[in-house]
Amino acid sequence: MILTVTLNTALDITYRVRALRPHASHRVSEVTERPGGKGVNVARVLAALGHEVTVTGFTGGATGRVVQEKLAAVPGVVDALVPVAGATRRTVAVVDDRSGDTTQLNEPGPTITPSEWSAFLAAYDDLLPAASAVALCGSLPPGVPVGAYAGLVRTARSFAVPVLLDTSGEPLRRGVAARPDIIKPNSDELAELTGSHDPLRATQDARRRGAGAVVASLGPEGLLAVTREGRWQAVPPASVRGNPTGAGDSVVAGLLSGLVEHLPWPARVVRATALAAATVQAPVAGEFDRGVYEELLTRVTVSGEVSAA
Amino acid sequence: MILTVTLNTALDITYRVRALRPHASHRVSEVTERPGGKGVNVARVLAALGHEVTVTGFTGGATGRVVQEKLAAVPGVVDALVPVAGATRRTVAVVDDRSGDTTQLNEPGPTITPSEWSAFLAAYDDLLPAASAVALCGSLPPGVPVGAYAGLVRTARSFAVPVLLDTSGEPLRRGVAARPDIIKPNSDELAELTGSHDPLRATQDARRRGAGAVVASLGPEGLLAVTREGRWQAVPPASVRGNPTGAGDSVVAGLLSGLVEHLPWPARVVRATALAAATVQAPVAGEFDRGVYEELLTRVTVSGEVSAA
Repeated sequence: MILTVTLNTALDITYRVRALRPHASHRVSEVTERPGGKGVNVARVLAALGHEVTVTGFTGGATGRVVQEKLAAVPGVVDALVPVAGATRRTVAVVDDRSGDTTQLNEPGPTITPSEWSAFLAAYDDLLPAASAVALCGSLPPGVPVGAYAGLVRTARSFAVPVLLDTSGEPLRRGVAARPDIIKPNSDELAELTGSHDPLRATQDARRRGAGAVVASLGPEGLLAVTREGRWQAVPPASVRGNPTGAGDSVVAGLLSGLVEHLPWPARVVRATALAAATVQAPVAGEFDRGVYEELLTRVTVSGEVSAA
Repeated sequence: MILTVTLNTALDITYRVRALRPHASHRVSEVTERPGGKGVNVARVLAALGHEVTVTGFTGGATGRVVQEKLAAVPGVVDALVPVAGATRRTVAVVDDRSGDTTQLNEPGPTITPSEWSAFLAAYDDLLPAASAVALCGSLPPGVPVGAYAGLVRTARSFAVPVLLDTSGEPLRRGVAARPDIIKPNSDELAELTGSHDPLRATQDARRRGAGAVVASLGPEGLLAVTREGRWQAVPPASVRGNPTGAGDSVVAGLLSGLVEHLPWPARVVRATALAAATVQAPVAGEFDRGVYEELLTRVTVSGEVSAA
């Protein structure tokens, strides 16, 4: 199985309103709820691709129970979340009916106690031997040490399980130094990590900082992968338009599934790019249509070069 | 006991943010949750005044479980909510840290099926014989007939239980025709019911439509009560400033407690006005401080006249 870690799981709530106006009262016309947090989203995409996935991280309170009830309904996903006393956070996306624009409200998440963090580390150790790969995804809730991902990367490496890290800021900086196999920053995260706004230079710099492979997500310009084996850029068709929410999580799922299927790098970045584009085009944020994805697979262009041995 | 009916119960969530900007992403710095819906708020104030209160209405889903858990922690309040398949709605109040201004997002509430509505009517019939008074509060969830309050008013009258109706629009129009003992419209609700923007004229017209007593809440100008016994206006001190959320529910609690304690009307409107003013001044929306309330009781001014016999 593939293991995904979401330390800050969420109940993602979407509200549709006519148009959000500050300091006014709004009737919500439609409410949707789904389990969220980056690693949970990655797991859902991996399961849709036919992989067995186990999700771990934290769950607590009434919102945590809803997250778990909804996860239980996703075929192929095994729930190995660790219970905590605090309540799983909510995120609220308020979508304007007219423009489709989204206003986001993110709760901070529960404070994790030292004994809850220890319980997670024990669960992680128990899960790793059965994992073909692990993804460490998203922000850290209050109480989790800022070097948490660095430790989780080292543990995965000690079990010889390939590890992908998708986070930002100081947790990314520290995590990279622990030598994860893959990181997947977007342009902003890459610039914050390296100080450079030039994608190729920043990507190479991130590798020097410790990442085995760096796959930079460049929005409409697709993915730039710089790896030991070579360097590739995959670009989606120009016609792709929609909601980018969840596209990054689809990239992670594409890269991880390609890794465990032993696909060569060009095929991995094509898959990840097609999945991201299908996610952008889907009417529901974070979902994708299998037919659209398979059609996009044939329309992503990839260029690059193999490293000199 | 006093019975309060909240057909559209809610989990009231308050978010603090720096300043709400449409189409941006916000970190919520503080989350508070409490059981809500007008009748639930009325019950909390009645309980704080020392009355035994039973709350009924609907509860469902994970949000309903949270509402019930939190209600169980309020001394003096008995939970007689009727379970439904749909989930209790949430309301989200987003408060700007700088200005204190609030943006409100209200979910529509679950759709009530005909058999759920029948189950509620049976529960209401069972509860009424033990009630000294009943308050029918707030909006109707989808699926409940628009004439619902008219029927509930008639049933209360058939049990000789005094009934206060606090709603708006068509449910108020139909409910008034069933001759409730008291209605408590604000200026807008009164104008919508009667077509008149003159408070005294509109209040008198509302009595002609069937209400035994009309207590119009006029914001900073206090309460205007027009009853069989006479006509009174109670005015809070000019210095009262704050958040008016929940002030109307405190008025209902003040009027109902005065009714069951057989206070004369001037004392009822003074109590209701002082409670509302204490609620406006409280730092947390919908709460009130007992000391502030008791001090305000001495500072509310009341004027009026007894009807000619």
